[in-house]
Amino acid sequence: MNDGIVNVGVIGTGMIGSLHAGILSGRINGARVVAVMDLDGDRAAAAAANCGGARVFADAGALIEAADVDAVLIASPDAFHAKGALACIAAGKPVLCEKPMATTRADAERILRAEIAAGRRLVQVGFMREYDRAHRALLDLLRSGDIGRALRFRGIHMNPYRSSHATVATVIVNSLIHDIHSARFMMGAEITEAFVRWVPAIPKDARSARYAIIHISFDSGAIGTLEWSGDSGYGYEVEVEITGENGAAGTTGVHSPILRQGGTRSQAITPDWPDRFFDAYVDELAAWTGSVLAGQATGPSAWDGYMSLVVAEACIKSTESGQPEPVAGMERPAMYLPRGA
Amino acid sequence: MNDGIVNVGVIGTGMIGSLHAGILSGRINGARVVAVMDLDGDRAAAAAANCGGARVFADAGALIEAADVDAVLIASPDAFHAKGALACIAAGKPVLCEKPMATTRADAERILRAEIAAGRRLVQVGFMREYDRAHRALLDLLRSGDIGRALRFRGIHMNPYRSSHATVATVIVNSLIHDIHSARFMMGAEITEAFVRWVPAIPKDARSARYAIIHISFDSGAIGTLEWSGDSGYGYEVEVEITGENGAAGTTGVHSPILRQGGTRSQAITPDWPDRFFDAYVDELAAWTGSVLAGQATGPSAWDGYMSLVVAEACIKSTESGQPEPVAGMERPAMYLPRGA
Amino acid sequence: MNDGIVNVGVIGTGMIGSLHAGILSGRINGARVVAVMDLDGDRAAAAAANCGGARVFADAGALIEAADVDAVLIASPDAFHAKGALACIAAGKPVLCEKPMATTRADAERILRAEIAAGRRLVQVGFMREYDRAHRALLDLLRSGDIGRALRFRGIHMNPYRSSHATVATVIVNSLIHDIHSARFMMGAEITEAFVRWVPAIPKDARSARYAIIHISFDSGAIGTLEWSGDSGYGYEVEVEITGENGAAGTTGVHSPILRQGGTRSQAITPDWPDRFFDAYVDELAAWTGSVLAGQATGPSAWDGYMSLVVAEACIKSTESGQPEPVAGMERPAMYLPRGA
Amino acid sequence: MNDGIVNVGVIGTGMIGSLHAGILSGRINGARVVAVMDLDGDRAAAAAANCGGARVFADAGALIEAADVDAVLIASPDAFHAKGALACIAAGKPVLCEKPMATTRADAERILRAEIAAGRRLVQVGFMREYDRAHRALLDLLRSGDIGRALRFRGIHMNPYRSSHATVATVIVNSLIHDIHSARFMMGAEITEAFVRWVPAIPKDARSARYAIIHISFDSGAIGTLEWSGDSGYGYEVEVEITGENGAAGTTGVHSPILRQGGTRSQAITPDWPDRFFDAYVDELAAWTGSVLAGQATGPSAWDGYMSLVVAEACIKSTESGQPEPVAGMERPAMYLPRGA
Repeated sequence: MNDGIVNVGVIGTGMIGSLHAGILSGRINGARVVAVMDLDGDRAAAAAANCGGARVFADAGALIEAADVDAVLIASPDAFHAKGALACIAAGKPVLCEKPMATTRADAERILRAEIAAGRRLVQVGFMREYDRAHRALLDLLRSGDIGRALRFRGIHMNPYRSSHATVATVIVNSLIHDIHSARFMMGAEITEAFVRWVPAIPKDARSARYAIIHISFDSGAIGTLEWSGDSGYGYEVEVEITGENGAAGTTGVHSPILRQGGTRSQAITPDWPDRFFDAYVDELAAWTGSVLAGQATGPSAWDGYMSLVVAEACIKSTESGQPEPVAGMERPAMYLPRGA
Repeated sequence: MNDGIVNVGVIGTGMIGSLHAGILSGRINGARVVAVMDLDGDRAAAAAANCGGARVFADAGALIEAADVDAVLIASPDAFHAKGALACIAAGKPVLCEKPMATTRADAERILRAEIAAGRRLVQVGFMREYDRAHRALLDLLRSGDIGRALRFRGIHMNPYRSSHATVATVIVNSLIHDIHSARFMMGAEITEAFVRWVPAIPKDARSARYAIIHISFDSGAIGTLEWSGDSGYGYEVEVEITGENGAAGTTGVHSPILRQGGTRSQAITPDWPDRFFDAYVDELAAWTGSVLAGQATGPSAWDGYMSLVVAEACIKSTESGQPEPVAGMERPAMYLPRGA
Repeated sequence: MNDGIVNVGVIGTGMIGSLHAGILSGRINGARVVAVMDLDGDRAAAAAANCGGARVFADAGALIEAADVDAVLIASPDAFHAKGALACIAAGKPVLCEKPMATTRADAERILRAEIAAGRRLVQVGFMREYDRAHRALLDLLRSGDIGRALRFRGIHMNPYRSSHATVATVIVNSLIHDIHSARFMMGAEITEAFVRWVPAIPKDARSARYAIIHISFDSGAIGTLEWSGDSGYGYEVEVEITGENGAAGTTGVHSPILRQGGTRSQAITPDWPDRFFDAYVDELAAWTGSVLAGQATGPSAWDGYMSLVVAEACIKSTESGQPEPVAGMERPAMYLPRGA
Repeated sequence: MNDGIVNVGVIGTGMIGSLHAGILSGRINGARVVAVMDLDGDRAAAAAANCGGARVFADAGALIEAADVDAVLIASPDAFHAKGALACIAAGKPVLCEKPMATTRADAERILRAEIAAGRRLVQVGFMREYDRAHRALLDLLRSGDIGRALRFRGIHMNPYRSSHATVATVIVNSLIHDIHSARFMMGAEITEAFVRWVPAIPKDARSARYAIIHISFDSGAIGTLEWSGDSGYGYEVEVEITGENGAAGTTGVHSPILRQGGTRSQAITPDWPDRFFDAYVDELAAWTGSVLAGQATGPSAWDGYMSLVVAEACIKSTESGQPEPVAGMERPAMYLPRGA
């Protein structure tokens, strides 16, 4: 960082890790990928080569502690996220950790307490929708006050693939966690209650999930729904709609050409998330790199990572009890200022 | 009816009654308004004059029993609906009764049992959305099987006016009853559970309703939401969206010109229900008139009127318990065939 | 007409004639089809039966002069239109004549002079787009003054079928005549110049027409284009867009459900004109019937029929000269008040 | 360029020059602004400071010949474009020249011949729409063959400001030149004829331009229109629609949130070109920088700059003659391969 360039170590070089590494080395002026780690050595070596010759590590801890690594990006399997984030905090290095920050509320709280003990924000969680232009344009509109106080949040998250082996609990922690964060961030409010109903993907397996609706209440008095499909039948679509006292507003994520053909007027919907959110990943990494250089974290925080898991836990409890469940997290520590609308 | 014309008596000549009477006398080939009744004699006289000289009654019972009245349209205040419908059944006369068919489940059951005892359908309930072209086009699409089995129903019902004095219970029975019926009809399934959350219109009056979401489950395994606003901030909008296994489809109720002006591209939304549903009322009355002439009821039935109130009752109970509540109506009597998708 | 019912005679019982006859006898309160005529006697008999037993004529002139025929609807082949309209004027009977009113400017002028000599409007030309709700909503918006003085007219007329044998001249007189009238009516101005370019349907036949653009100028100073396809590749679409000094506005003719499926978000476009304009035909016939009963013509006039042919003639001349051609009709006779925006 | 970084000199630091310089120095990995020139020394100094200390030149020729300037960006007033481009060719330096490449056809031809004499492409013209994602997505769709051979091009170019002092000739060379290039590029065909009609901005000044339509024909047999407004009354909008044998497709440039408020459903339209095309400028400069590093020009060429002026000249002639005018450029030199669809 002495030369105004952040030397990044990337842990995990699967689909999302490679995407991040490629963007960091090819598109972000102030970043350089100097180290990569993956249990699959060949995959790590390929990613290192794509980044112009980064060092390959076999051990995540060693990468985190390497002297020439200024900051760390964790894109490993979910189970490692918490351990990796804690090691980064221990090493005093900024870390961009993919969502979910942990797989349990307890682990998330551990990270939060470690960061508080460290006395400064080091963790950014990979809730990249904050950087999506459609979301930002809606947020600008909300902040303008034009539609007044928000009464209702609607999160739409339609996936294109059959994920029939996923349980509703996995879906909540791994996929709906994005929508939980969006709801909190876009509304600038905390979720206080969650109630879940879903349609199974496999009729005989009641806990498999094909389509789910989470009903949420906010501490602002607003209410909302998170709507999720594991197999939309048409493509990938993420949208947010917010109803305020003086009107309603929503994102528009479909920008493809209008085609008239064969009896219809149509627009192509993005097939999957890499197409839909590529720009958001670029902007996320640019913002994160800038915040590392400035020594001042700005993006989704460990508090956001923790609270999203607290909500997820209430959601899972609701899937078991069949009732609405209260969301009870700790008080927001002073270190974490309110963000969002 | 000897001359192929249905002689209709209209009870209630307020806004909706006058609308019906005007359509019946001016636009429906096979109908004639021969009698009107209203407690407000002047209003009744004015309506009678608009229909080319119908007789004015001061008593609803007398109108129902009048020898020259072939069929009755009830558009009186809600509290009279049940009594009027029962009198029509007793007189053996077809009746188009505005929604709700009754104000309580017990009264609705009374009507249902009376009609069963009469041995034939005489009652049609004024769920006019069934006749709206946007709804019918969506229903056609569902019936084509194109999007497969329905997984999710979404009902959107945004009103333009501040109805701040209405309690959530009133809103459910008087306004959301439309959406309850739409959900049952469009899905071709019965609702089995309801869970309600709402934002008060008056902060200090927790039971006043500004915005409400009802979460519903269906006996088909599908789930859904009914979304209602008492004051949208922008106009009147009723839409239905249905997600199936192989895609999703929704109505489009906004048909106004596209205007580019002052920095925006916009379309006007209908200001209120008379504009939005005028055609549906015409088609409803044409279909009802035809069914009376044919001696064969076809539209929303007493069963629909009853079940919508059973669901409404569960919704109200949920507003009191704060929990999801089961919907438990009687078994569908054989006389009422399944309708809808 | 003594009993407030117009007894209509229908000449021509092909596709459009049958459509008109069916609407008149089944949907229009004040009309009755009492006579039909077609060279194809079987077809005429079938149409008569569908109208509840109208008399069948083998001769158009006899039908027009029949004592019990109050008014005439001409839906015969184009070549007969002028002769039929002249006979109706001679008989003093109101006539709704399908477009084009004549096939030549000379014949159109003959009708115009005959009607002027008769001293009152008897002829309405079947430019049914005037009765289309999308067109009317746009006209209302224009008349409100909201977008100011019109600077530019755009007429879009896409047909779904291969009409590869039609010459550009035939296309102008038979199909683009609708758009010529729309331009005049929606703009409330006369066309003063026309310039035509087209893409042949058959490469070796330069006068066949697949796609055509007519550039027009108006006496108001505005300019515009009429855009026509003989084979859109996707369905039937008719739209109008008008740019004013303070904004722009256009019709929206696609009202079908929004379908998300197979990678796209789409809406079905009406396959052909009977679907797109059925309501307009109903409203046209209701308005015409009303105007006959009132003894006061209101719809598209013989002047409109004449002027559309004068413009068509200039268009055809431009296809021959390759140059813009002036439109030179007679002065508008006082009997024909300005209509449209 | 020895270190893989292109050292750019920027001539002209007005609105568009500053925009380019800011993007080059802040967003493009492989570019650095080392020199700026402007007749307004203060403005030049400010721009130099914004680029991290570029050298300030008072003379464009000196900047072009400076040893440490690898490539030149010309964003000076139009009148200097040709002279600057010629100097760059003489110096053997790649140049990105803002549109129009020259203000007369003769000057454009001079550049073209100089580049041909130089034996390799050095000139890229600033037709940045080629880099706009909406245009690229449409081009991808065309290239897929999905809608077949193109029959019709429609270019829409609506400006937000009153430019009432501009003559139609100025508008053609300075603003519609973008649309002329788009038509050629998107259609992959040369324009062979142009016919212009327009509405004056100032009623008494017939050559002032408020709204213009250019009718064009292509050597592929297709036809089209370029539609331009100097004051749309609503914002800035650039769209392209292409009708093919098997369907039609068009860009969608409006991506703002959908807002429901005050009786309408609306989306904000970008107020002006810097908002609409910022991303296109970034992508243009990234592509140009990459092409300079690769030593292989790829973007809009001197041939495109020349042909757009040849077409513009025919357009201007048509505004004088009132007739369609043929477009007669030289044969395409072998050095310039076909580009576009």
